[in-house]
Amino acid sequence: MQTLTVDLGDRSYPIHIGAGLLNQAELILPHLAQKRVMIVTNTTVAPLYLARLTATLEAGGVAATQVILPDGEAYKNWETLNLIFDALLTQRAERKTTLIALGGGVIGDMAGFAAASYQRGVPFIQIPTTLLSQVDSSVGGKTGINHPLGKNMIGAFYQPKVVLADTDTLKTLPARELSAGLAEVIKYGLIWDVEFLSWLEANMDKLRALDPVAITHAIHRSCEIKAQVVGQDEREGGIRAILNLGHTFGHAIETGMGYGNWLHGEAVAAGMVMAAETSRRLGWLSDADVARTRALIRAAGLPDVAPDLGVDTWLEYMGHDKKVEGGKMRFVLLKKLGVAVITGDVPADVLTGVLTAPH
Amino acid sequence: MQTLTVDLGDRSYPIHIGAGLLNQAELILPHLAQKRVMIVTNTTVAPLYLARLTATLEAGGVAATQVILPDGEAYKNWETLNLIFDALLTQRAERKTTLIALGGGVIGDMAGFAAASYQRGVPFIQIPTTLLSQVDSSVGGKTGINHPLGKNMIGAFYQPKVVLADTDTLKTLPARELSAGLAEVIKYGLIWDVEFLSWLEANMDKLRALDPVAITHAIHRSCEIKAQVVGQDEREGGIRAILNLGHTFGHAIETGMGYGNWLHGEAVAAGMVMAAETSRRLGWLSDADVARTRALIRAAGLPDVAPDLGVDTWLEYMGHDKKVEGGKMRFVLLKKLGVAVITGDVPADVLTGVLTAPH
Repeated sequence: MQTLTVDLGDRSYPIHIGAGLLNQAELILPHLAQKRVMIVTNTTVAPLYLARLTATLEAGGVAATQVILPDGEAYKNWETLNLIFDALLTQRAERKTTLIALGGGVIGDMAGFAAASYQRGVPFIQIPTTLLSQVDSSVGGKTGINHPLGKNMIGAFYQPKVVLADTDTLKTLPARELSAGLAEVIKYGLIWDVEFLSWLEANMDKLRALDPVAITHAIHRSCEIKAQVVGQDEREGGIRAILNLGHTFGHAIETGMGYGNWLHGEAVAAGMVMAAETSRRLGWLSDADVARTRALIRAAGLPDVAPDLGVDTWLEYMGHDKKVEGGKMRFVLLKKLGVAVITGDVPADVLTGVLTAPH
Repeated sequence: MQTLTVDLGDRSYPIHIGAGLLNQAELILPHLAQKRVMIVTNTTVAPLYLARLTATLEAGGVAATQVILPDGEAYKNWETLNLIFDALLTQRAERKTTLIALGGGVIGDMAGFAAASYQRGVPFIQIPTTLLSQVDSSVGGKTGINHPLGKNMIGAFYQPKVVLADTDTLKTLPARELSAGLAEVIKYGLIWDVEFLSWLEANMDKLRALDPVAITHAIHRSCEIKAQVVGQDEREGGIRAILNLGHTFGHAIETGMGYGNWLHGEAVAAGMVMAAETSRRLGWLSDADVARTRALIRAAGLPDVAPDLGVDTWLEYMGHDKKVEGGKMRFVLLKKLGVAVITGDVPADVLTGVLTAPH
């Protein structure tokens, strides 16, 4: 097991990464304000891990109830969130009752927002069971739901008490979702650490085969980079935006194709190629840099070409992104591999060039 | 104009109290991150004050849009909250767009929760137009909505950038709502300041006649007391609970009689008498203290007798109150007039005595 501390003053918390963590009550018990929890999970994860987590907690003397939500981004909405509130209120959960998110990013986002909002805030623990959520949702405190007019438009910044990233849970993850998680891992290399990028190029096969040493290192390094960035900018006023590399394009892909048809990581992967391509057209990346980015993304089993939405649709869906400021669109691009930059200065013809029949 | 600063470190903010504040753009402009706001108000307040506020803002160069909600506690729910999100998204409001709440407590609670949640937090300004919201919602950062199973069960702690309590707006307030606001004013005397309680006894007629000096003093002193309490306990772990004097009983009255049939302040008034009565039965208050409490509440035009819900119904509705901890009911009572105490030790027979046919 490796442990990383996310340093946020009095809201600091540990992330434990390793195999078999679901069996270790001692990682959870010190963080409970009351020996009472409600586990939020979904219909896919519940049959796999709910009994094990419940048994671990009950062996530790904790009363654990549960709410099982339908699975998928399409359910990341108010109606599903309200199922959590209904369960909390029906069970008369109190201010010290801890919510535990057991599942992927959608479960973490919804359980986290429910924890932030129920009685204006109850304690929250995250047990991410997908690679994407282990390397993304574990750090940063972003929670929320979608609105018909935009993704993640309603939510809160809310930090967990502890995160358990049990790498055993990745064994049941579909290959496509493993790849989607690798998109975010690649992102950390692209924006922050070209050595990590090289390491990923050398170890991609091991990662896709879930080699325990490789996957633990990849998760640890990813969380470490994200924690460094978030530690400098908890509420996303500045540098934190570099974590959105590929996301402005990616959100447009997700919206344009309908939530859930492209996985978030797949959309981000194709979006990162578009960001790299934009950076190349601005003279910052070489042809070889873009080719290297594409090759790594393909090696991870990810798409490197976005769907052709048409320029107007691209612009419309990109305009709703949270990185719009003063009516001007801002982009996360690459000054070079391993160095991200935030800029509002992308000439219209460069942008149009990238958006016209992406390839 | 009087000004009070609520001291919360980097989230400190001023409360301005006085006549004609709606005309003073200079009180708002310094607090805007962007010259763009959305005003949240309701169908009752909009015809009275929306044009004036909009004109003031526009004269200051601020682009002001609006969303007008139906009026009443019955609409303090997700569906109405979502009208705010719909408006924000349709207008493409950004992270620096400020939400301004123009109205009473319900508008403040919903606009505040919308501000806390839209894009995980945008700036928020409060312009409370009822006495209750001027002395209660101005301080403390509580925002939220009701759930069918409980009042204020979903929300956030979220602080405004500035509060304007324009006493002119009280001129259009129905007498019944003015009285409801006075219930909270009386509460501050009961829990914290017996001299203020005496001042209220001497000035109740002036307050009900909206004497400008008297009403400004009452609002200022109420906010000052609340700020002192909240400043010690921003997120309601301890002493802040004394602000809930009368509220455990009061919430049960509101729930039992259906939201909106008893005004919040009316329910709190009758609830404070029940708290005083409980305190008397515990030997802390004298018969004269309880009589004095009742007399002041009646002088404010408020009910001093709760409806007879039946003991079982009382207990059921009181159990959902947020002051429940570890399954045990906690009460805010009075050690003497001007001194509140929080206790979990109310013998069942004392409680049952108070709940049996309240009188």
